[in-house]
This record gives sequence, C-alpha cells and structure tokens, in this order.
Amino acid sequence: MKIRLLWVGKTKSDFVSSGIDHYLRLLKPFISLTVVEIKEAKTADKPTALSRESDKILKQSKGYILLDERGVGYSSAAFANFLKNALLNEKVIDFLIGGPFGVSERIRQQAKHIISLSKMTLTHEMARLLLVEQLYRAFTIIKGKEYHY
Amino acid sequence: MKIRLLWVGKTKSDFVSSGIDHYLRLLKPFISLTVVEIKEAKTADKPTALSRESDKILKQSKGYILLDERGVGYSSAAFANFLKNALLNEKVIDFLIGGPFGVSERIRQQAKHIISLSKMTLTHEMARLLLVEQLYRAFTIIKGKEYHY
Repeated sequence: MKIRLLWVGKTKSDFVSSGIDHYLRLLKPFISLTVVEIKEAKTADKPTALSRESDKILKQSKGYILLDERGVGYSSAAFANFLKNALLNEKVIDFLIGGPFGVSERIRQQAKHIISLSKMTLTHEMARLLLVEQLYRAFTIIKGKEYHY
Repeated sequence: MKIRLLWVGKTKSDFVSSGIDHYLRLLKPFISLTVVEIKEAKTADKPTALSRESDKILKQSKGYILLDERGVGYSSAAFANFLKNALLNEKVIDFLIGGPFGVSERIRQQAKHIISLSKMTLTHEMARLLLVEQLYRAFTIIKGKEYHY
C-alpha cells in the first residue's frame, strides 16, 4: 500500500512548500507516500510542452487519478471513502497534478478517475497543497483519528 | 470601495500566514482591504463559544458574505462576476470566516450570501488562504490582468 504524488515542475512558492512538508509529516504514520516530480518542459509553446510532459507522465505511471478542475467534486467524507476503496484494491495509488499549462487531452483521457478539488480554478501549486491536506483529512476519517492542525 | 475580511481567531499556521501575506500584497494595487480579527472565545464549550463569537461578529458587521462548506459553489469566473456586482452596489464588502468551531445558526441565517470554496471540508485557516487567493484571482479577471504566481 503506497501513494505516489506525481506533479509537473518544482514547487516554487515557499509557503506552499512548507505547507506540503507539514502535511507530509502528518501523513507519515498513515501511509508510505512518495512525491515524484516530473520535469516541466522548457518551452513556452503550450502544445509542445504538454506533449513532452505527457510522455514523461506515461513513462512514470500506468494508471493515475488526475486532479483537474473539470473532474468530479467530492465531499471530504466521500473522498475518504473513495481512497479507502482504492487502498483495498490497489498496491500503488498515483495522484497526478499537471504543471502551469495543465495536462494534455491524452493524459485526461487515460486517467482512471478525474477529481476536482474545487469548482474554483486553483494554481497547480495550491492544488498540491489542498491535495495533501485532503489526503491527511481522509486518513483521519478512515482511521477515526483526531485531525491535528 | 473597500473589502474587509472578518475572521475569528489568529492564524496559527506559519505557512498559511505567509500565504495570506503574499496574496494581500498582490491585492494591494486592486483594492483597499483590511483584515478584522475577531477574538476567539476562550472556552471549549462549543455553543457558548459560538454564541459569544456571534455577538462580536454582529457588532463588527451589519451585513456579510459568509464562507461556509454548506454554501453555494462558484467557479472562479462566477465568483469574479459576483464580486464585480457587489463592488458596484456596496461601499464595504465584508467576507466572514468562522473559527475552529465554525459559526452559529444565527450568523448563518443573517448572512447576505453563503459561498462555499470547495465541497471538501477545509480548516478555517486553509479557507482564509483560499479566499485571499480567489479574491486576487477575481481581480485579475475583472481587470483583465495577468495572474502572477
């Protein structure tokens, strides 16, 4: 049982980095979790960048849950339930968050599930922060533990 | 034209504080914005705490937009539109986020609008961070400016 967080590009914002570190620390007792940073394509041409990044993503993961604005919105309880089932059925669960350009249609089509963290548009960095927070919240729900701030 | 952010209790988490400061800096060219920190009631009894905090909130604001999980979800574009109209019609716009216990029914009933930032449960601190980020995003949309990370 293992979770991998795949995301494109480094986290540039300091406050987001320290928020992510904070939740990764809180997640430690619950699950083995690795962050896989996929290199951001170095071109301002969006289709070229997305296409190159898609190849790298598909090399890393055979099946992933994509976090995307156009996905299905879950309550935290429903997300915890979704995660609980995924943990029962799969050895490795990959969550994917695209880079500043998002992801290609190819990546969207091959996703096992697409989950939206909010109807609002989030920067890909804020999405990372919200994802780790919701993963931590989901484990406190699944394990019946108190949520620590 | 002025926005006030009313929230209950101090921001305890360092990464959230620095994230809020980051977006308040980015918001400066767009709007006069003040944070009004309402004192958190010092009691572990939830109904007593909420009731005391309600009195303080109603002393501070005659009409406010409440951020609450059970509110209406907006896309960022719809939120920008909502904000644009509010700015045309009102001199001061108050956004309210409750404390660790949330808010009382009284506060919920007297809200002008109730907006949900996500279907997922957020800590009241993460809600602060997301609100300032979405306010910044809304102004970039209203003014047609580039979003700076």
